[in-house]
Amino acid sequence: MKSVVIEKPGVLRIAERERPQPGAGEVRVKVVAAGICGSDVHIFHGNNPFARYPRVIGHEFSGIIDAVGEGVDPARIGTRVAVDPVVSCGHCYPCSIGKPNVCTTLQVIGVHLDGGFSEYAVAPSRNAYPLPDCIGDDVAPMIEPFTIAANICGHLKPRPDDIALIYGAGPMGLTVIQALKGVYGVKQVIVADRLPSRLKLADASGADLLIDSSVTPLPEELTRLQIKPTLIVDAACHPAILQEAALLASPAARIGLMGFSAEPSSITQQSLTSKELSIFTSRLNSARFPEVIGWFERGQVQPATLITHAFDLEEVEKGLHLFEHDAAACCKVVLRF
Amino acid sequence: MKSVVIEKPGVLRIAERERPQPGAGEVRVKVVAAGICGSDVHIFHGNNPFARYPRVIGHEFSGIIDAVGEGVDPARIGTRVAVDPVVSCGHCYPCSIGKPNVCTTLQVIGVHLDGGFSEYAVAPSRNAYPLPDCIGDDVAPMIEPFTIAANICGHLKPRPDDIALIYGAGPMGLTVIQALKGVYGVKQVIVADRLPSRLKLADASGADLLIDSSVTPLPEELTRLQIKPTLIVDAACHPAILQEAALLASPAARIGLMGFSAEPSSITQQSLTSKELSIFTSRLNSARFPEVIGWFERGQVQPATLITHAFDLEEVEKGLHLFEHDAAACCKVVLRF
Repeated sequence: MKSVVIEKPGVLRIAERERPQPGAGEVRVKVVAAGICGSDVHIFHGNNPFARYPRVIGHEFSGIIDAVGEGVDPARIGTRVAVDPVVSCGHCYPCSIGKPNVCTTLQVIGVHLDGGFSEYAVAPSRNAYPLPDCIGDDVAPMIEPFTIAANICGHLKPRPDDIALIYGAGPMGLTVIQALKGVYGVKQVIVADRLPSRLKLADASGADLLIDSSVTPLPEELTRLQIKPTLIVDAACHPAILQEAALLASPAARIGLMGFSAEPSSITQQSLTSKELSIFTSRLNSARFPEVIGWFERGQVQPATLITHAFDLEEVEKGLHLFEHDAAACCKVVLRF
Repeated sequence: MKSVVIEKPGVLRIAERERPQPGAGEVRVKVVAAGICGSDVHIFHGNNPFARYPRVIGHEFSGIIDAVGEGVDPARIGTRVAVDPVVSCGHCYPCSIGKPNVCTTLQVIGVHLDGGFSEYAVAPSRNAYPLPDCIGDDVAPMIEPFTIAANICGHLKPRPDDIALIYGAGPMGLTVIQALKGVYGVKQVIVADRLPSRLKLADASGADLLIDSSVTPLPEELTRLQIKPTLIVDAACHPAILQEAALLASPAARIGLMGFSAEPSSITQQSLTSKELSIFTSRLNSARFPEVIGWFERGQVQPATLITHAFDLEEVEKGLHLFEHDAAACCKVVLRF
């Protein structure tokens, strides 16, 4: 089978490998489609602290179960599935409170384990969620990115009376915008980005107010409009944003962070405590696939809006390059098998 | 009547003033006992950003309603009450979601409004909570400090299976320890402080493990004991603690902050997001008096444990001085009228 292997940082090879055999409790998936994420680019460049090499990348993928390991019902063979990349132990403290995404022995398919940019991939059977017919192969790899939005929303508990501010209209910001509008019915979603093309996607995703922060400084614009957001999501993931978010926030607001920067953010107790702000961080997803499959089924989100490019597996390097270097033209890239 | 007036920063006077008249919706309370808090010391020294002068300080007090304003049932006269110092508008966004403590026009009795270090004090009638007979005058001023613990616990939602770490065994830390053990039944409460006398009070408050951080560096001790706290409260309020707390925390832990320092804390996204930590800040209390009165009635907390000194009103300056300068000997000081 063909697999996209990062041999070591900077070296990508489309390798011919043996089909993996599903172990006990596992299924093998014949991959049909996969999405490119920033993490794939980071592993390619050696900027992901968790990756080990060589590694088959890809953690957003769907396909058809074609083999099962010991203890898995063979009736699963032939099922169309989307695969949750979060592999957890099920019994540590985080797992015991429903947070397998920060399991103490967490392994992520496509990061710690070989992933979905491959004709075949294995995963624990419980990680392979059946897809209803109404979710096409074109959008199925978008389920995982939307679980990232579902996870942070699970922490932030959006309400219809919230005034939300989203920093960054990249894939993470856009999925959050769609969830806030389509799932939670948040009355006002404000989006700040520096790229007009991304703001156009935010508009198509249901945002109510677009701020091009390369033209209009966000703090001044919100002051002018007398808007104090009650819910803020930093999907731009810049370390300077936390301080600004605390400044702009309404008293009693919640702030969500998804970034992984190792550069320190500076924040005073006073700026947080005087308004009794809460900060929630969100990593990967905590068994959110069923929830997001429901969103897709009910048409509450529009995943196709975010897909700007599709390539064949062989063109993966072109896809990674486009994703990394042309944010103006490119949002989500899907690989077809 | 006699009132403790901070005329301007640094100038305290026991003044003879006219008894205040309760306005519409207000009651007047003949004060019986009041507690000294760090905020009183800060206002005395001019270090509270919200205080205006001259100001009658004191926001932890109880007494007997002796007069009522327009619209208040005269049957309230003679009722023993504890007074919630949080005066809120009732209709702004924070008030609408049950957070009057960060009301956009918040006024705190004893800070923005004249307080309870006075023979008589006025307050909105709804802020005066009836006291059951079983709560004596000696401990009634302790209700407000325990509402601070109730408020942060309301955010952190302690569970019996939590492993809690409390930084600082001052009044805030000690009330939290008592709440975690007596109210929430948290299985392990670890307390770090630099004063043996404070650790002794933590022990009397139910702490399971005491760490004298002047002798044993906390990170090394927790590493040695293989303890990863799932719930951390910074009741020492030093800006450096947040970074250490994120380092020591278990994945999926919650961190509570109560400090008001204007000195920046440094924290990386990575240290928070990799463990999916949440940070809750807590200010004052959000209508927590009934809850804490219940704790006192049921004997779930031991407020008397924390009272180390009692003085007459005239000795207030001695009490403030002791509270500020002799943390080794002094925890809570109560003023008697």
